[in-house]
Amino acid sequence: MNIYQGRKILITGGLGFIGSNLARELVTLGAEVTLVDNLWPDYGGNPFNIQGLENRLTVNISDVRDSHAMEYLLKGKDFLFNLAGQTSHVDSMNQPHVDLEINTIAQLSILEACRGVNPDITVVFASTRQLYGKPDYLPVDETHPVRPVDVNGINKLAGEWYHILYNNVYQIKATVLRLTNTYGPGMRVKDARQTFLGTWIKSLIDGQPIKVYGTGNQLRDFNYVDDCVAALLLAGSSDVARGKVYNLGSEEVTSLKDLAHIMVEMDQGGSVAFVPFPPERKAIDIGDYYGDFGLIRKELGWEPSVSLRQGLERTLQYFRQNRSHYWS
Amino acid sequence: MNIYQGRKILITGGLGFIGSNLARELVTLGAEVTLVDNLWPDYGGNPFNIQGLENRLTVNISDVRDSHAMEYLLKGKDFLFNLAGQTSHVDSMNQPHVDLEINTIAQLSILEACRGVNPDITVVFASTRQLYGKPDYLPVDETHPVRPVDVNGINKLAGEWYHILYNNVYQIKATVLRLTNTYGPGMRVKDARQTFLGTWIKSLIDGQPIKVYGTGNQLRDFNYVDDCVAALLLAGSSDVARGKVYNLGSEEVTSLKDLAHIMVEMDQGGSVAFVPFPPERKAIDIGDYYGDFGLIRKELGWEPSVSLRQGLERTLQYFRQNRSHYWS
Repeated sequence: MNIYQGRKILITGGLGFIGSNLARELVTLGAEVTLVDNLWPDYGGNPFNIQGLENRLTVNISDVRDSHAMEYLLKGKDFLFNLAGQTSHVDSMNQPHVDLEINTIAQLSILEACRGVNPDITVVFASTRQLYGKPDYLPVDETHPVRPVDVNGINKLAGEWYHILYNNVYQIKATVLRLTNTYGPGMRVKDARQTFLGTWIKSLIDGQPIKVYGTGNQLRDFNYVDDCVAALLLAGSSDVARGKVYNLGSEEVTSLKDLAHIMVEMDQGGSVAFVPFPPERKAIDIGDYYGDFGLIRKELGWEPSVSLRQGLERTLQYFRQNRSHYWS
Repeated sequence: MNIYQGRKILITGGLGFIGSNLARELVTLGAEVTLVDNLWPDYGGNPFNIQGLENRLTVNISDVRDSHAMEYLLKGKDFLFNLAGQTSHVDSMNQPHVDLEINTIAQLSILEACRGVNPDITVVFASTRQLYGKPDYLPVDETHPVRPVDVNGINKLAGEWYHILYNNVYQIKATVLRLTNTYGPGMRVKDARQTFLGTWIKSLIDGQPIKVYGTGNQLRDFNYVDDCVAALLLAGSSDVARGKVYNLGSEEVTSLKDLAHIMVEMDQGGSVAFVPFPPERKAIDIGDYYGDFGLIRKELGWEPSVSLRQGLERTLQYFRQNRSHYWS
């Protein structure tokens, strides 16, 4: 059953990486989609991400910090996919108040607006595995202590908890997904503000060596964006998901070194350079991380369907074809 | 050894309940004390709390949200006892952004100011057991999951974590104490914005029945303010405390019903009325709570020394004598 057909959807961060991929899928499902994005150059929004969709959805350039605009945009919507966020850990340390405005203050305003003008809306919030900090055990499940290691982690956590609180106290239907490293067409690749993997893709296509910090033995899990979009759609459509926090993740756990080698091999060229950790990244590095996504598998039936190799192939192909729209 | 003698101390929330009791002790120890307080009527500040001390310390009326004033006041200080906070759970639900400004945004500004103008300062932050939410087990130790049940809990937690983060990343020496119900001379009694116990004291002295919500079987622990002050001073003076979070607590665990009966008995009069929970309090009630303070006992040698009966006697005596300064 397609519960999204004909429904009114708002996506914050809608011109960004995950937002635009979600929008594409929702338009295909027959939803009436509005995207909010501030197109701030340091963030993920890129109008090219919705190429070909321009006439099938509405784009509203504004900022989630603009509580008046958000209240207007939230009126009458059936679903909010709340994906806007400041994602750079380093930026959050250098400009902690900006991160706080976007990831915390704006989230509270959005939820207050839902309570005020649209209490029947269903909200899905994109959170991050970053807030577990350095894991006590692996794989990390949702009962693992949260222990943010940077300003971004603290602020995202507060933003996340407001969602669960407003679900529990005010019955604003809300679900949180804690995303792991997500990659795919439309991701930010011009720098590491979304994920280091973006810069690797750019380096590979540019014929530059992929830079691995430290030994590259750190383990990580990755989700191809289509799998992430599937999880968002399931979360929005499932009553059992209300008030819940779910990890995403993958059973394909890979070291950064191996990931770099896979990419180099795939490209039939390229190279890997091992370089020392920059101090500002070392200070907030968390070592190995991979998540236990058993809860969302059990309760919503989600699991990733795109292998790392498949996903990387599609991603590299996309950026080779569309390079000029993502970096110069 | 008295490490506070001749040292420059800033106390935010300094005219409030705990701040003023701490100030009195620090003045006795020979410290040079500056109090910051906004004297906002809904909060805990009361100039009478420092009666007799007026010429032995400096009072600066300003708001922790005034980042410029805070930066000026932090310069040259050896210690910051960071006690200012919005404490009312109900107010935090009705005015969530105000709570966020004080308990989160201002805390980040204070730590940024420390980093900018006084990185050698030692900070002790007053947090709350409230952020554990409804306990999974009792007594609650510091490894218990944090699960705030109201906006205040979320915001306090973010403010708390900034302190630990700035300790870990920027070496701003910081310690967090998670206070349980603290009571004593100078507490806010005109309403329940600090703790329900304030209103009980007022009712008793006014000859009104003490109102117990629900059955009164909920268990709680209590600290007399002198014990809380002792913990703050130990935390400020101990290198082992840097970057740590400690519960306070008491081995005297008491049901609210028994507490009410003790108070009535002590007063040789008075009465108890059992009334239904107001809905806005029921929504955020956490059931039983008492804390495990084994960590601070082990690492800093702290434990409470004032029994509940002793503490209540002193508190009731203080408010009987000084009633006109606290309510009309």
